Amino acid sequence: MKRIGVLDTTFARVDMGGIAADELKKTGTGFKIERSTVPGIKDLPVAAKKLLEERECDIVIALGMPGAQQIDKVCAHEASTGLIQVQLMTNKHVIEVFVHEDEAKSEKELAWLAERRAREHAVNAYNMLFRPEKLAKSAGKGLRQGFEDVGPAR
Amino acid sequence: MKRIGVLDTTFARVDMGGIAADELKKTGTGFKIERSTVPGIKDLPVAAKKLLEERECDIVIALGMPGAQQIDKVCAHEASTGLIQVQLMTNKHVIEVFVHEDEAKSEKELAWLAERRAREHAVNAYNMLFRPEKLAKSAGKGLRQGFEDVGPAR
Amino acid sequence: MKRIGVLDTTFARVDMGGIAADELKKTGTGFKIERSTVPGIKDLPVAAKKLLEERECDIVIALGMPGAQQIDKVCAHEASTGLIQVQLMTNKHVIEVFVHEDEAKSEKELAWLAERRAREHAVNAYNMLFRPEKLAKSAGKGLRQGFEDVGPAR
Amino acid sequence: MKRIGVLDTTFARVDMGGIAADELKKTGTGFKIERSTVPGIKDLPVAAKKLLEERECDIVIALGMPGAQQIDKVCAHEASTGLIQVQLMTNKHVIEVFVHEDEAKSEKELAWLAERRAREHAVNAYNMLFRPEKLAKSAGKGLRQGFEDVGPAR
Amino acid sequence: MKRIGVLDTTFARVDMGGIAADELKKTGTGFKIERSTVPGIKDLPVAAKKLLEERECDIVIALGMPGAQQIDKVCAHEASTGLIQVQLMTNKHVIEVFVHEDEAKSEKELAWLAERRAREHAVNAYNMLFRPEKLAKSAGKGLRQGFEDVGPAR
Repeated sequence: MKRIGVLDTTFARVDMGGIAADELKKTGTGFKIERSTVPGIKDLPVAAKKLLEERECDIVIALGMPGAQQIDKVCAHEASTGLIQVQLMTNKHVIEVFVHEDEAKSEKELAWLAERRAREHAVNAYNMLFRPEKLAKSAGKGLRQGFEDVGPAR
Repeated sequence: MKRIGVLDTTFARVDMGGIAADELKKTGTGFKIERSTVPGIKDLPVAAKKLLEERECDIVIALGMPGAQQIDKVCAHEASTGLIQVQLMTNKHVIEVFVHEDEAKSEKELAWLAERRAREHAVNAYNMLFRPEKLAKSAGKGLRQGFEDVGPAR
Repeated sequence: MKRIGVLDTTFARVDMGGIAADELKKTGTGFKIERSTVPGIKDLPVAAKKLLEERECDIVIALGMPGAQQIDKVCAHEASTGLIQVQLMTNKHVIEVFVHEDEAKSEKELAWLAERRAREHAVNAYNMLFRPEKLAKSAGKGLRQGFEDVGPAR
Repeated sequence: MKRIGVLDTTFARVDMGGIAADELKKTGTGFKIERSTVPGIKDLPVAAKKLLEERECDIVIALGMPGAQQIDKVCAHEASTGLIQVQLMTNKHVIEVFVHEDEAKSEKELAWLAERRAREHAVNAYNMLFRPEKLAKSAGKGLRQGFEDVGPAR
Repeated sequence: MKRIGVLDTTFARVDMGGIAADELKKTGTGFKIERSTVPGIKDLPVAAKKLLEERECDIVIALGMPGAQQIDKVCAHEASTGLIQVQLMTNKHVIEVFVHEDEAKSEKELAWLAERRAREHAVNAYNMLFRPEKLAKSAGKGLRQGFEDVGPAR
């Protein structure tokens, strides 16, 4: 049985981890979900590594919601850099699902965007683990998670 | 007995380490505090690593107060990047507690903010070590350390 | 038989991986192509490492298309940093082929640019593996991939 | 006998290494100084590592003077990042003593600032090695090296 | 017999590698030159590492010419970060010789600057390997490679 880590924060303003877990269950079977919650996005990298190494996950979905200020952008960059390092240290994928607060024009849109992006990336994580051929078929298709796909350039 | 490292700087303008240690003692038992002080935030990463590896801490709270100028922002970024690396090298959490001087409008507010953030993150560190279920229950709740929580997006 | 990894994304708006594979086949023989597709450019580093280590590639061509916004520029920087790390961890080359959406003035030019850059870098990858003397002869010649060569400074 | 590395550059416009060595000798005994000079600040990281590993230093003082232009700021950031990595690879402190050319309003002030910062950080390095309790007593005191201390926030 | 790696790119608009090799030969003896050419500056880090590890170089001179646009500045930063990492992984120096296209006002000045900087850094590399005391004597002297030395601050 494969294990999928679902990792989120108390800083985020939407229960992105709960949503991702829900979508995973709707998408398929053959895996167990391991949950972990940390305070903020800078705590995600080592928590992802611990899920992969200590709780034996095969992949991790790391969800966070950076704030709208410049300092938040820097934090997000640091967290992303760390999440890439984790992957290189473990040879396993960590799907980063960040929704920046200033991507949405209202709280309502923020909640909508966070849910949709979390769901779409949960499916990506499932595909990477169980059906990589699905990704191969969509190479270069201009897919997006959250907002609409932009499609191929013509 | 668990060990919690409390690491601070002589550069900071508030005794954030002393405050964090005080809050830890109020929060619970079952741990010993290891203290360390370095000149500035760029000295924090290796000092955190030494606390984790040489003084056998299970978690470290790294407290610092970056200045308000552009160069200070760069230093903070370098320190944060290093603190994330430390965690990935040790598979242990380091809770970064930075208060930027320009987050506050006066010295008085700066002292208030530094104390409150240090106290709230001390509790986070305790929770990560002793009661992770507390964090899990607050996933996606829009929590903040220092200023008011913003709460979930609706 | 050498192995060349061709790695692309579903985010890109042009089938850069397919184009690179096509060009490789036109360029020479003596190698097998290993394909992999991930959602976005931040997923490229570990996927490149897996191609090099688990699927025994001798070199990887990593193709992606960062968007035009500031956040996309940061993502590209993070991906690039990771791709360099992969190379240092494996002592093998990963040829990064990124086309930024705002490099082109229209969708049509974007498609043209992505194809041309992918083809020219596919030849570079082939040369690095099979005929390094070709590169040596072009040292300092002001070569570019995609747009016109600028040539030597005179 | 402890060993303290004093590492500087030919790029700097003040003999910061000589000054740091002088201050160390005035501050205490029980150590030997190992000197090394490199062209610029980007050469400092590996030189610091070699002092720690090949010449068996217990701590290194790395002194440099980044220029005033944007490119120099980037170089300083790269050097600092490298110096933090060195520390994490060796579990030893490297005290970075950088004076940015644009911190001073005149050549005379630049020379004054570089000397004072080098001297104060030489004492910091000595304290870290021989009397860490001195640093502990100054935690949160708003100390600065070079310009005046700002003191605690009240 | 020592080995000095001379590593350049096809992107550069001046044959900086050829110039550096020429200057090395004029400067002294007791070494063999190992040449390598890659497409762009982001390919330099792993190529430098391969020169140090697989072709047993004692030092590498890595020459490149970043373009004048913002994206080129980011590439240069990524390459520099990688080159510092290479040094920390090998405990050997890599002398980075970058000439940014916008450092010069004309193609002619660019060619002049690239040649002069390549020659002066070739001597630096030779000195680091064979006569480190030459560098020690110039500590804090405000030396520059390419444009005029600025000299000590007075």
